[in-house]
Amino acid sequence: MVKQIPIVENILSANDEIAVKNRRRLDEAGVYGINLMASPGAGKTSLLEQTIQRLSGRLRVAVIEGDTAATSIDAERTEKAGAASVQINTGGNCHLEAHMIGMALDQLDLNAIDLLVVENVGNLVCPAGWKLGTHRNVLVASIPEGDDKPYKYPGMYHNVQTLVINKIDLLPYVPFNMDFFQKGVAALNADLTTFPLSCASGEGVDAWIDWLVSAVEAHRANPAG
Amino acid sequence: MVKQIPIVENILSANDEIAVKNRRRLDEAGVYGINLMASPGAGKTSLLEQTIQRLSGRLRVAVIEGDTAATSIDAERTEKAGAASVQINTGGNCHLEAHMIGMALDQLDLNAIDLLVVENVGNLVCPAGWKLGTHRNVLVASIPEGDDKPYKYPGMYHNVQTLVINKIDLLPYVPFNMDFFQKGVAALNADLTTFPLSCASGEGVDAWIDWLVSAVEAHRANPAG
Repeated sequence: MVKQIPIVENILSANDEIAVKNRRRLDEAGVYGINLMASPGAGKTSLLEQTIQRLSGRLRVAVIEGDTAATSIDAERTEKAGAASVQINTGGNCHLEAHMIGMALDQLDLNAIDLLVVENVGNLVCPAGWKLGTHRNVLVASIPEGDDKPYKYPGMYHNVQTLVINKIDLLPYVPFNMDFFQKGVAALNADLTTFPLSCASGEGVDAWIDWLVSAVEAHRANPAG
Repeated sequence: MVKQIPIVENILSANDEIAVKNRRRLDEAGVYGINLMASPGAGKTSLLEQTIQRLSGRLRVAVIEGDTAATSIDAERTEKAGAASVQINTGGNCHLEAHMIGMALDQLDLNAIDLLVVENVGNLVCPAGWKLGTHRNVLVASIPEGDDKPYKYPGMYHNVQTLVINKIDLLPYVPFNMDFFQKGVAALNADLTTFPLSCASGEGVDAWIDWLVSAVEAHRANPAG
């Protein structure tokens, strides 16, 4: 018998008030905002590079990059791919908060963009609890992380509306039971829109891009919807 | 030019006092303690399974499993592999703290074990800041996470004394520049003991096991050293 010790902590925050203000700024400028979350190395930045390049000429994209350290590796990658990029250095903090996004929005010309993607700190726990003012939470899972992640990080899997399953090109080389994974996801979040894809091979990326374009268009037609 | 916004937060904690008490309990029982950290899916539990099985008959191992959710997937795996296992459910909290370890130690017969491995919550940020009372911090990196992780999570890479690089069997299938990775590691932590290995193929695991046995023996010879 495995012994169990439960320790429960509630996190409440005035953060949400600032998130509402951020949302209003995005809506007034007709910008659709996405909060992109994942564990370290799942491929958030690779997905962003693919996304920015494939949306070129269709949507104007900006990126807010969250990093715990003073590195601009990711922001340089997304800027090179063609998106205006602002980097937030959290000084070791494990997640982005709404006030950080507010400061980053000050650095962007919101009237010159259609889609804002916030790349959160790589972390499957903490970012899930913090509203930023974006319209949609997107989680990037990846095949080599293993099929048990929905069971072990339910807070994150419960708190997103879209799921990208990246690195499907690695399925032949690692143990990953897609049925077990999907069953865990469905138990937490039955309405999740899911995109299995590979940023390395490009397989499946178009479906994600099409969904993104229609989400931006739906928001433009009805910003408060 | 990428714009940068620095946000700095200091975390101080009375946690360290409890960590000192935990350390004393381990030392008095002659138990060597390891704090095993990694991002989600790097292979901490797979490494533990391999470790427990290969140490069978040589060292008596116990495991404290930290999970954010009420799942006992990992603790069941380590118990099945042959180690007394205690599961801590942090109730969504993103890291283990010393008081949680103290509660878990109450559940173990410390005089019946040689090696205690604490499997921390899968997270490359938060666990690095919390002393538990163990003797050594061990980080499990993994090849598919990418070679930029030391640059992006310097707090963790700076704060460990041993580094396992898992999933080297995937090197042919993913982009990973080992020189770039090692250069990033060396800049943060020149004295790190490093073990490249694959829990899937078994390659390199023996060197890790040999090091572990000698670390336990060195501690037994000089618990306060």
